[in-house]
Amino acid sequence: MQIAILLFENLDAQDAVGPNEVLQWLPGAEVVFPAKTRGPKTSGRNGLALVADRTLDEVARPDIVVVPGGGGEVRARQDPAILAWLRQVHETTTWTASVCSGALVLGAAGILRGKRAATHWTLMEELAQFGATPVRERYVFDGKIATSAGVSAGIDMSLALAAKIGGVDIAQAIQLGIEYDPQPPFDGGSPAKCPSALVEMVRATTRALEPEIG
Amino acid sequence: MQIAILLFENLDAQDAVGPNEVLQWLPGAEVVFPAKTRGPKTSGRNGLALVADRTLDEVARPDIVVVPGGGGEVRARQDPAILAWLRQVHETTTWTASVCSGALVLGAAGILRGKRAATHWTLMEELAQFGATPVRERYVFDGKIATSAGVSAGIDMSLALAAKIGGVDIAQAIQLGIEYDPQPPFDGGSPAKCPSALVEMVRATTRALEPEIG
Repeated sequence: MQIAILLFENLDAQDAVGPNEVLQWLPGAEVVFPAKTRGPKTSGRNGLALVADRTLDEVARPDIVVVPGGGGEVRARQDPAILAWLRQVHETTTWTASVCSGALVLGAAGILRGKRAATHWTLMEELAQFGATPVRERYVFDGKIATSAGVSAGIDMSLALAAKIGGVDIAQAIQLGIEYDPQPPFDGGSPAKCPSALVEMVRATTRALEPEIG
Repeated sequence: MQIAILLFENLDAQDAVGPNEVLQWLPGAEVVFPAKTRGPKTSGRNGLALVADRTLDEVARPDIVVVPGGGGEVRARQDPAILAWLRQVHETTTWTASVCSGALVLGAAGILRGKRAATHWTLMEELAQFGATPVRERYVFDGKIATSAGVSAGIDMSLALAAKIGGVDIAQAIQLGIEYDPQPPFDGGSPAKCPSALVEMVRATTRALEPEIG
């Protein structure tokens, strides 16, 4: 079972690493990291780089594809090579998935038309422009398409996906292995739980960052 | 404020990327990724590599140091250069932190002697051998030392650390930005919440993997 986690410049590292952390433990899993070119891809606003170990051409029929987000998705979704690859591999995947703004890349490839989908809470309206029905859920399955809310939601989505693929026992073993018993110090990870001033501040920051890092 | 996240071969990518995802958003943060040598460091059982952008020598006085775990910590904690670097930078850090089995590397450097500390639930006894008092909490602060439970706990610890460094408003903004409103599909991320057969299976798998990937 080949799992392809797409990389591109200025991706969000957590979006890619969360699903890898979970899905790599599925029996028979081979996780690969394709990009347009091999080599380091930068992540976010600092020096962290993840290394692409395959070109897109070298990953022709993955069983599962996962598309991360991050500032760089703005360019990724305008890249004909990435969109063509996604359309092609989606024809034969058993699961096509995205984390955070990765849903906009799937959307730009035409894959979310008529589908219910999740994305980062600041991007709901943008997602609708691709013909998707944005859903404010932690993760959404619609047919063989799995999409998650922002960044950290990729872990939750991947555990749910692991249960569908490998069964509940395997998924629970993975969850225990990565000790995923979350205890965030604040009950504030969604806009519904935060004061509106904070919500608007984070929304503005996110918007301002997209051109900078994208 | 320089934040150094130590890299080494066969680290667990989530252990490093979780804290990076949170701490990079602190005002004035510069996150660097030192290792014995620059370049890609492998992660876990697949092809994912994170790139070290500094040598240890090039990071002499970080304000914060974070030590991830993963199978490779077994070699890391036997590496005189890594241990000497940790002892040296710990003298002047404002915070010294670890995620998962990274606590054993801090322990081997002598930094946890007499300290309360957390680590992956399978490694509590091993941690005690370094003179630490193992604590079954999600994360523990003892003086300027912050340690977390397994893998995913690095996110929770880092948010708590962000609140101590930047204040609660900043930490909550970061939590909302990464949409950290966890909804794991199973209530089973700690051994206390799982059937004993599952706990023993995961414990055996973790033990078996250490030599393989370490």
